[in-house]
Amino acid sequence: MSVKVALVGATGYTGLEVARRLVGHPDANLVLATARADAGKQISQVHPSLAGLIDCQLEKLDPESIAKRCDVAMCCLPHAASAETCQLLCQAGVRVIDFSADFRLSSLPVYESWYSVTHPWPQRVGRTVYGMPEFFADEIATADLVANPGCYPTSAILPLAPLIKAGLIEQNDIIVDSKSGVSGAGRSAKVGTLYCETNESIAAYAVGQHRHQPEIEDLVGRISGEPIEVVFTPHLTPMNRGILSTIYVRGKGDAGETLVPMIHQCWNEIYQDKPFVHVVDHLPATGHVSMTNHVQMTARAAGNRIVLICAIDNLAKGASGAAIQNMNVMFGLDQASGLR
Amino acid sequence: MSVKVALVGATGYTGLEVARRLVGHPDANLVLATARADAGKQISQVHPSLAGLIDCQLEKLDPESIAKRCDVAMCCLPHAASAETCQLLCQAGVRVIDFSADFRLSSLPVYESWYSVTHPWPQRVGRTVYGMPEFFADEIATADLVANPGCYPTSAILPLAPLIKAGLIEQNDIIVDSKSGVSGAGRSAKVGTLYCETNESIAAYAVGQHRHQPEIEDLVGRISGEPIEVVFTPHLTPMNRGILSTIYVRGKGDAGETLVPMIHQCWNEIYQDKPFVHVVDHLPATGHVSMTNHVQMTARAAGNRIVLICAIDNLAKGASGAAIQNMNVMFGLDQASGLR
Amino acid sequence: MSVKVALVGATGYTGLEVARRLVGHPDANLVLATARADAGKQISQVHPSLAGLIDCQLEKLDPESIAKRCDVAMCCLPHAASAETCQLLCQAGVRVIDFSADFRLSSLPVYESWYSVTHPWPQRVGRTVYGMPEFFADEIATADLVANPGCYPTSAILPLAPLIKAGLIEQNDIIVDSKSGVSGAGRSAKVGTLYCETNESIAAYAVGQHRHQPEIEDLVGRISGEPIEVVFTPHLTPMNRGILSTIYVRGKGDAGETLVPMIHQCWNEIYQDKPFVHVVDHLPATGHVSMTNHVQMTARAAGNRIVLICAIDNLAKGASGAAIQNMNVMFGLDQASGLR
Amino acid sequence: MSVKVALVGATGYTGLEVARRLVGHPDANLVLATARADAGKQISQVHPSLAGLIDCQLEKLDPESIAKRCDVAMCCLPHAASAETCQLLCQAGVRVIDFSADFRLSSLPVYESWYSVTHPWPQRVGRTVYGMPEFFADEIATADLVANPGCYPTSAILPLAPLIKAGLIEQNDIIVDSKSGVSGAGRSAKVGTLYCETNESIAAYAVGQHRHQPEIEDLVGRISGEPIEVVFTPHLTPMNRGILSTIYVRGKGDAGETLVPMIHQCWNEIYQDKPFVHVVDHLPATGHVSMTNHVQMTARAAGNRIVLICAIDNLAKGASGAAIQNMNVMFGLDQASGLR
Repeated sequence: MSVKVALVGATGYTGLEVARRLVGHPDANLVLATARADAGKQISQVHPSLAGLIDCQLEKLDPESIAKRCDVAMCCLPHAASAETCQLLCQAGVRVIDFSADFRLSSLPVYESWYSVTHPWPQRVGRTVYGMPEFFADEIATADLVANPGCYPTSAILPLAPLIKAGLIEQNDIIVDSKSGVSGAGRSAKVGTLYCETNESIAAYAVGQHRHQPEIEDLVGRISGEPIEVVFTPHLTPMNRGILSTIYVRGKGDAGETLVPMIHQCWNEIYQDKPFVHVVDHLPATGHVSMTNHVQMTARAAGNRIVLICAIDNLAKGASGAAIQNMNVMFGLDQASGLR
Repeated sequence: MSVKVALVGATGYTGLEVARRLVGHPDANLVLATARADAGKQISQVHPSLAGLIDCQLEKLDPESIAKRCDVAMCCLPHAASAETCQLLCQAGVRVIDFSADFRLSSLPVYESWYSVTHPWPQRVGRTVYGMPEFFADEIATADLVANPGCYPTSAILPLAPLIKAGLIEQNDIIVDSKSGVSGAGRSAKVGTLYCETNESIAAYAVGQHRHQPEIEDLVGRISGEPIEVVFTPHLTPMNRGILSTIYVRGKGDAGETLVPMIHQCWNEIYQDKPFVHVVDHLPATGHVSMTNHVQMTARAAGNRIVLICAIDNLAKGASGAAIQNMNVMFGLDQASGLR
Repeated sequence: MSVKVALVGATGYTGLEVARRLVGHPDANLVLATARADAGKQISQVHPSLAGLIDCQLEKLDPESIAKRCDVAMCCLPHAASAETCQLLCQAGVRVIDFSADFRLSSLPVYESWYSVTHPWPQRVGRTVYGMPEFFADEIATADLVANPGCYPTSAILPLAPLIKAGLIEQNDIIVDSKSGVSGAGRSAKVGTLYCETNESIAAYAVGQHRHQPEIEDLVGRISGEPIEVVFTPHLTPMNRGILSTIYVRGKGDAGETLVPMIHQCWNEIYQDKPFVHVVDHLPATGHVSMTNHVQMTARAAGNRIVLICAIDNLAKGASGAAIQNMNVMFGLDQASGLR
Repeated sequence: MSVKVALVGATGYTGLEVARRLVGHPDANLVLATARADAGKQISQVHPSLAGLIDCQLEKLDPESIAKRCDVAMCCLPHAASAETCQLLCQAGVRVIDFSADFRLSSLPVYESWYSVTHPWPQRVGRTVYGMPEFFADEIATADLVANPGCYPTSAILPLAPLIKAGLIEQNDIIVDSKSGVSGAGRSAKVGTLYCETNESIAAYAVGQHRHQPEIEDLVGRISGEPIEVVFTPHLTPMNRGILSTIYVRGKGDAGETLVPMIHQCWNEIYQDKPFVHVVDHLPATGHVSMTNHVQMTARAAGNRIVLICAIDNLAKGASGAAIQNMNVMFGLDQASGLR
């Protein structure tokens, strides 16, 4: 059996990354791809790196047609627009992996306040599994709709959640300082992400106001059973891909050097049988995980804090790689199929 | 009058930057440049960007000769080697601006512990002015020896010191997360700073162990009169130049939004007549100050913290530009001469 | 006396570069700046790197007002729109330096064919000095309108013209393979110049169809008195600034190694008293001239060809630096004033 | 059956790339890896990106041990040293894929003149298959020793050889202007490939003197049966990976536009059943083939020339990907196994 995949919203970087991963996937293949403005073009015209590898004509979105031809839809649309489409797809009987933030949060008011929209399918908010198989594999396996995680949240939840659950660190004194490659800003034409605006420069943005902050808090809370508060600062870094999160926490009780081995042990217990999360001794660089679905994390003592460092590829484990991993779980495949 | 400058240790990036700045300086000129391994070569052979602009044969270091021909020496040597040379130059009667860390700290034991060497000229430790004219212009004006500031410390001391002095923020809950361009790592051949090791990747290094941490603590303490403790994490960022420091502090008493305008006002009072420090409303990017001696800083509220953001060019205000500024002060020139 | 400058079309990269250069210019200053969409904003809002250095409110274009307040206008508008504005400015009595291609070519039909527009001020085509003071300083000195050279043409004309004039190389066997930084593509929002589209990638564009080809042919012909034909291929290179032109020519008669010293001698004779053109022995890199108005060129023998290599900064000598140089000539200042 | 691979000289970029490709290869696996200075370390210490994916202790080179444990050795050593090791490995009975230039050329004197060494195993020069399965698959299938192609030559031979063979273009008027990412310069510590020396700069090097020039001439000659002469200029480009070759040729007889479709047709006939060579209509960028074993090529008319443009990834099809492809052919696997 080969899983038949529809790629909904194929023209951005996450769409390209899904298509590339499916080229090499032994048990899944791309059956159709949709686009709004570029419908009618070949996908290789929009993404010249696909030339010779894979091709198909971009179609207008038609949920019934997708339902007939595909097992699963990867939905790479902007928030709100995505929820609307997910509802149509689910109702037509397609299983859906949604890349947007629409079904990630537990709380409708929190969503509507941070995203400044009325949610098109409010009934599913709080009732959709978060697509992080390291914690929710069983629910993902049977889900009709999976909320694929945000990129920054992935780099923060994976190191934080086990430590909060284990009671090793304080819940209200957490600073997440994240550095992302520019692909995280998407592929639409904006002055702010022109080459010359971002190259040879690093800057913080959305300080104290980024929508991934409530996602980190919500998910760490859900996984650990404990409420947390986070100060979150994202930075635009002159590189295509990658997120490095430098996370400052305070130990509960046993601070200092003694806590570091306890943290590594806690992580190792949780992640030892997870194929993509690696607790390492070296200081992870985003280059170490670039183009892979892997996560590297480590901890260090520094003064009165512990510094957790986590590196991912924002387009792989931070988006399209995670989606493939979720698809693998949904269809009973090896979690790492197509991701090695 | 034109100040006659000796450049001691001309082959690195700070040496090149000094030479370039002197090309356009109306009141100073490069009279001689020294190098160890490259003595005998033209400086334009070592730095092809100087071809056609300025040239001279690199000489072996000879303090007596420098004393005869120059008013001031810019000493760009590694720590310990630098102190030894500074002593010879001072004794020969040359005024010296030292780029190394040898005379920056107040305490000899702190220096010897962090730098793991015996200090060659211990008598001057704690008795040398720190070359930050924003705070120490009067002492610099008459100094025979000036300790040019470290790059990271410049980006942390300028925002922090006034706030600590004004009692606006807590002294023991300060996190400095800094991102530096690769030129900060120098021009010697090392695998770690090869293009392919650092491009398309960001990583933390020396977590909790970087030598600029005690320098930040020492200087903020000296300027504000209050002891502070800092958690400091530097990151190697894929760009040639620039440092962005994202600094997490906690307000004393009045936390939150109300503190931000107080911080901006505090900075504006201190820096209003300083030509290079600019309090801005936008979020500073390192690209905004690249190739200039300028500093941009701002503050934002974020959860239970205030985030201070400061951008400098590590080779300009973080090294060679600061040195030119110090030289201007030492010789009674306009502080900004040659730096516009 | 200080030259009063109007910057017309201030929001792009060439406008920013003019503004920056004027900050440090001892004999000229920015008096007003215009913008269409951004009129009313401060120039430092559009270019945050100007914060603290220079500021003024962007105005709507008003030729009469410019004529009253300014000596010269730097016109950084798109072709055709530029010619129209230049005419209004000239008629109002302002001297104008035009950054567009509108007045560079000798022939109206050639212009209209390559640029696919009707020229708004055809009378001045073929009667406007080309702003390359290395060859046309006397005419520039008295001109009311100067056609500022194109970036690629500057990197090709400077090495080629003297060799054609001296009869050293064949006129119809010239290949110009040029590599440009991304700033050459301007600051408008386009997918093709997004960071992730150009970073970690190099590509040719407009092969055999770039508008700078007739400009190179026209000007080398005008300077040398000989018609030439050029094959020209520009490449988009992952860097902000710089153009490297690798030019393949064939010697006339004396081919091979013996020609290289003759070429260097020919260049040295022409350029020895020109402040910005440097004939060098090393292989020039764009980084060697980055952020400066300088040009480095060299020649090498390779098989049956001579390879000429020329490096400039596309925004400096390739645009705004050349404009400042032209302004200096127009107002009797030192050619290098504000450009060191 | 799974092919057992020895990686000889594992610490460079080609070694890393081989190791990564073997992680995902369904029919081959890394059995041992050697290193000189780093023997005893884990391979993941030398290449932190392998952490969690693959690991083994680096060994000293022992041909007998390799022969016992492995089917094939990938030899990533410097020239001359490589030939010596290849001889030992072949004599011990291991099949070898040699990444060096030692067995690529037909002529011993040409090799010894361009590489300035005495060849350690001269008997095999001119008697070793060139590892380009697009032309030599049958010989590769049975070879004991395969000379893996050079990176630049791959990008020039693939477009040129069929056109020379078909008599479409002149043999002595070929200019190859190539732009390579910095990984081509290797992973040893040199000032010239430090981040700050190569970032934001492009430069030609080894003009008329690069060792890949005779390799291009030799192989195009061997494949087409016609002698050719090439002018070759490589450029160091600020990116990790990729080679773009812009090749200027002159049509034989039918010049101009009519030749372009004939060239595309000629290529399509040769490459239609080759899995990695793609004739495209768009202008190829190196980013389009980055991290893949694919080749994109196109042709354009420009004045009196045809411009051929070819993009590869220098570490994939230009080195380690080609080696995997060769291994697949040697062991009867699908040519594209592990390379999708």
